[in-house]
Amino acid sequence: MAAAMVRTMSTTAAGTPPVSVATINPKLVWVALICDRIAGRLKVSISVLKCEYAVRGEIVTHAQNLQQELQKNPESLPFDEILYCNIGNPQSLGQQPVTYFREVLSLCDHPALLDKSETHALYSSDAIERAWQILEKIPGRATGAYSHSQGIKGLRDEIAAGIAARDGFHASGDNIFLTDGASPAVHMMMQLLISSESDGILCPIPQYPLYSASIALHGGSLVPYFLNEETGWGLDVDELKKQLEEARSKGITVRALVVINPGNPTGQVLVEENQKKIVEFCKNEGLVLLADEVYQENIYVEDKPFHSFKKIARSLGYTDDDLPLVSFQSVSKGYYGECGKRGGYMEITGFSPEVREQIYKVASVNLCSNVSGQILASLVMNPPKAGDESFESFMSEKDGILSSLARRAKALEEAFNSLEGITCNKAEGAMYLFPRLHLPQKAIGAAQAVGTAPDAYYAKRLLEATGIVVVPGSGFGQVPGTWHFRCTILPQEDKIPAIVSRLKEFHEKFMDEFRD
Amino acid sequence: MAAAMVRTMSTTAAGTPPVSVATINPKLVWVALICDRIAGRLKVSISVLKCEYAVRGEIVTHAQNLQQELQKNPESLPFDEILYCNIGNPQSLGQQPVTYFREVLSLCDHPALLDKSETHALYSSDAIERAWQILEKIPGRATGAYSHSQGIKGLRDEIAAGIAARDGFHASGDNIFLTDGASPAVHMMMQLLISSESDGILCPIPQYPLYSASIALHGGSLVPYFLNEETGWGLDVDELKKQLEEARSKGITVRALVVINPGNPTGQVLVEENQKKIVEFCKNEGLVLLADEVYQENIYVEDKPFHSFKKIARSLGYTDDDLPLVSFQSVSKGYYGECGKRGGYMEITGFSPEVREQIYKVASVNLCSNVSGQILASLVMNPPKAGDESFESFMSEKDGILSSLARRAKALEEAFNSLEGITCNKAEGAMYLFPRLHLPQKAIGAAQAVGTAPDAYYAKRLLEATGIVVVPGSGFGQVPGTWHFRCTILPQEDKIPAIVSRLKEFHEKFMDEFRD
Repeated sequence: MAAAMVRTMSTTAAGTPPVSVATINPKLVWVALICDRIAGRLKVSISVLKCEYAVRGEIVTHAQNLQQELQKNPESLPFDEILYCNIGNPQSLGQQPVTYFREVLSLCDHPALLDKSETHALYSSDAIERAWQILEKIPGRATGAYSHSQGIKGLRDEIAAGIAARDGFHASGDNIFLTDGASPAVHMMMQLLISSESDGILCPIPQYPLYSASIALHGGSLVPYFLNEETGWGLDVDELKKQLEEARSKGITVRALVVINPGNPTGQVLVEENQKKIVEFCKNEGLVLLADEVYQENIYVEDKPFHSFKKIARSLGYTDDDLPLVSFQSVSKGYYGECGKRGGYMEITGFSPEVREQIYKVASVNLCSNVSGQILASLVMNPPKAGDESFESFMSEKDGILSSLARRAKALEEAFNSLEGITCNKAEGAMYLFPRLHLPQKAIGAAQAVGTAPDAYYAKRLLEATGIVVVPGSGFGQVPGTWHFRCTILPQEDKIPAIVSRLKEFHEKFMDEFRD
Repeated sequence: MAAAMVRTMSTTAAGTPPVSVATINPKLVWVALICDRIAGRLKVSISVLKCEYAVRGEIVTHAQNLQQELQKNPESLPFDEILYCNIGNPQSLGQQPVTYFREVLSLCDHPALLDKSETHALYSSDAIERAWQILEKIPGRATGAYSHSQGIKGLRDEIAAGIAARDGFHASGDNIFLTDGASPAVHMMMQLLISSESDGILCPIPQYPLYSASIALHGGSLVPYFLNEETGWGLDVDELKKQLEEARSKGITVRALVVINPGNPTGQVLVEENQKKIVEFCKNEGLVLLADEVYQENIYVEDKPFHSFKKIARSLGYTDDDLPLVSFQSVSKGYYGECGKRGGYMEITGFSPEVREQIYKVASVNLCSNVSGQILASLVMNPPKAGDESFESFMSEKDGILSSLARRAKALEEAFNSLEGITCNKAEGAMYLFPRLHLPQKAIGAAQAVGTAPDAYYAKRLLEATGIVVVPGSGFGQVPGTWHFRCTILPQEDKIPAIVSRLKEFHEKFMDEFRD
C-alpha cells in the first residue's frame, strides 16, 4: 500500500485521529500497518477493517446492552428508558406513518382485496384507485416479480413527473434508478468512481459517515473539505478549491464532490447563490456532483426553500452535456420517515451512454430494489392532491409532523445554547443538531486517561447518566481539536421537556466535576 | 496490475474466452489492458468494467427491444409474445403469490386494520393472529423504522427455529443476518473475504454469475472448479483439490468454496455422501464454506431430499470451532417465488467474535434490509401448520406450484433430449435446465463470422425466431469447446406444449441450415 496516500477515517471512541491525509505522518502509516496485520490474522479484507460507521458504532452497542440490563432489572439504572437520538429513525421514536401511503402499500401487497366490495369499508377510495393505477404500471400486476433493474418503468416515470413539478425542469424516468433506500445508490456510485486509493472523493467535514465508510470499502481516498461552523456550517468554494489542489498535488485524481443539502449532521440549508458557485466549480473542475438531497422536505426556516442541484444547474443554462450530476432521495426521511421500507432513488444526468451502461450493469447484479419501496418512492414524489378524498387528512398529518419537528429543533437548540460550554448552530433543516462542546482541559485529560476521544467520553457519560444516545462528533469528522456530538430532533414532542432537563442536569454535574 | 493473476470472467455474447486463469496467456493480458484503457477513458472503475452479469445481459436487452417492437406493431415478428426464460422470476410468468403470506404482509403494512372488526371479512383469522404476533416482535410495532442491522431480533429467532426444525440441530437468531434477497449477503461475504487479486474464491463452473460478478466487483480472483456433466453435473472433490493446488501454486490465497445446492444453472441435487466430503475438504483446507441453498424447497426427485451443509457438518460432529460456514436463503425461490419482495438471510456459524464484528459493521453501513422482506423471510421459514385455519388452502397452493414445476421440468427436459444434437441432464431441483448444444461445425463457423460465441449465436437466433429468451452457457462458464444455454422451467404449464413445438420447429430448421 502506498503510504503516501493512506487516509484513515475518524473513529467513534478509539484514539485514532479524525479524517486527515497521511502524507508523511508516521502515526497514520503505523495505523495502516496495524490494519494490514489484523486483516491478515483475521483473514478479512483490509478495506472492511478500515471502514467505520459511527451512527451504529460502539456507543449504540453500549446503549443496547444497557437496554437489556433495564429489561432484566428496571431499577438498576438512573433512567427508565433508552432514548435513541443517534440515528434519523423517526418511527422508532413514535412518529406514525402517513395513513394514505400505508393504505396503498397494503392493497398492493394483497391485490386480491381490490376485487372485493368489503375493501371499501377499510380503505379510502383514492387509495384504492391509486393501488389500481400502480398495479396497471407493473407488468402482469406482479408485485412479487423482479422488476426492471432500474425499477418499474411506470413508477420511474411518475417520480420523474414529481421531480419536474418540483423543479420546473424536465426529468425522465430513464434517468431514475430505484434503490433500497439511498445507501445502495451511494455505494453504486462509489463503486463506479473508485478504482484505487488514487481516486479521491471530496466530502464535507463533518459528513454523514456513509460516505467515509463507502469510500473506505471501495478502497478510495476521502478528500475532506471543512464546513465553516462560524458561518452556520457554511460551504466555502475557496475551501473546495484549496482542498482539491492539495489532493491533486499529492497525486490523487479527484472524481467527485459530495454535497449534503440540507446538511447531515449539521442541519444547514444552502442558499441559491452558494449552490450556483458549487455547480460552476464542478463544471470547471470536471467533477461529478453527488447531491445528497434526502432531507429535501425537512426544512424549518421560511427564507431558505429547497432547490435541487439539478434545478440550479438547469437554471444556469447547463444541460446534460455540461456536468454529470446525481441526486439521491429516500423514503426514510422527509415527513414520511419510512426507514424500514427501504425505498429510494438516484436521478443521474450528464453521463455518457457508455458510463450509464456500466451503472445499469452494477444495478443488474443486485437484480432490483424491493417493489414496496419502489411504490412508496413513487407515492412520496406524488402525494394526494387537492380534491382527492384523502387530501385533507394527508395534509394534516404532514403539517403536524413537520411543524412539530420544527418546534423540537428549536427547543433542543435553545436548550443546548443555554448550557455552559456548549454552542449550537440552528437546525435549518434535516433531523439533527450538531452542538459544539467547549470542554474544560480537565475533562479532556480524563478522556485521554481512558484512551477515549473527549467527545466520545462525554457521549458515554451522557448515556450512562440519562439513557440519551448521541453520536460523538469524531464519527463525522470535525476540525482537529474541536469536539461535537450529533443529536436527532426526533423524540416525540411531549418528551422534549424531560429530555432537556435530564440533559441540563447531567451537563451541569459534568461541568462541576471537570471545570478548570 | 499483476498480469500473472488476471482472470477474465466469461461474457455472454462477445468473443472473450470462458472463465479461466491467465498466467502467461498473452490474449488475456491484452484483454486486461484494453479494460484498463477503457476504464481510464470513461473514468469508471476497472472492477466495474470487468464485471459481467449474463442473466440480464445483451440477449435480455435485445428481447426488451423486440418486446417494444411487438407493442408498436404486433404483426412485425413471427411470434406474439416474449417468453422470459432467462431468469428465475416465477411471478413474472404468472405464478400467483401464496395467499397467506400476502395477507400477513398486507396487515403488517397497515397495522391500523388490526383494530377493526371489518378486517375479519377480508383476511383469514390465522393471518390476523400472525400479524399481531409479528408486530409484537417489532420494537414499538414500528414496521417503518430501521431495524437492528442484522434484522428484527424476534424474526431472526423465528427463522432460527425454522432452521432447527428443518435440520434437527440447534440454530440461533444471533447468527442470522437478514438481507434484501440473497445477493447482498453474497456481496457482503465477498467484501469481507477479498482484499486483492491474490484472494481467491473457488466457484463451480457452470456457476450463477452473481458469484463471478461479485468477485470481479471486489477485485478478487475466481478459482474455477468444473462440475462433471457426464455424471449429472457431479461435484468431484478430487477436482476441488486439483484446482485448489493449482491456484495456490500461482500465489493465490484461496479463502472460500462456493457450493450451489440445488445447482444453478445446472439443477442437480447433491447426495449426503458427497456433501460430507465437501465439508471435510473445507475443514482440512481451512476454507470458508459458502453454501447457496436458496433452492432448498425446489426439489423434484423423491430420492434426494435437501440437506443443509450445516446439518451435514453437525451430523459429522463438527461444531462452531471446526469450520466457518455460511448458508444463503431467499424468499425469491422455493414455491413462494417472491423475487420483488427482496427478502433473504444468511446464517453464519464458525466465525470468531472479531470477524463477526466486521460482518456486523458491513451490515450496519447499509442500515437494515426492508422490513416486509424480513417478515416474509420469517414466514417462509415458519409457514402455517396443521390445524391453522389457512393450513389446507396453503398446502394446496404450495403442492400445486411444486408439482407443476416438477411436471414442467420433465416436459422440457424430454423435449430437449428429443432434439438432434442436444443432450440435457435431469432438473432434479432449482428452476433451470442447462442443455448442451452439440453444434455442427458450420454453425460454429457462422457464429465466429459475426464475432459471437456459438451458444450466444444460437440463443439470439432462437429469440428472433420464437420470442423465447434463454441465457447462453458462456454467461455461466462451461468446459472450453462445449456450448450450452440455461432455460428456466417457469412458463405456466398450459404454455409448455406451444413452447416445446416452437423450440422443435426452430431447432430443426437451424440444424437443416447448418448440418455438416
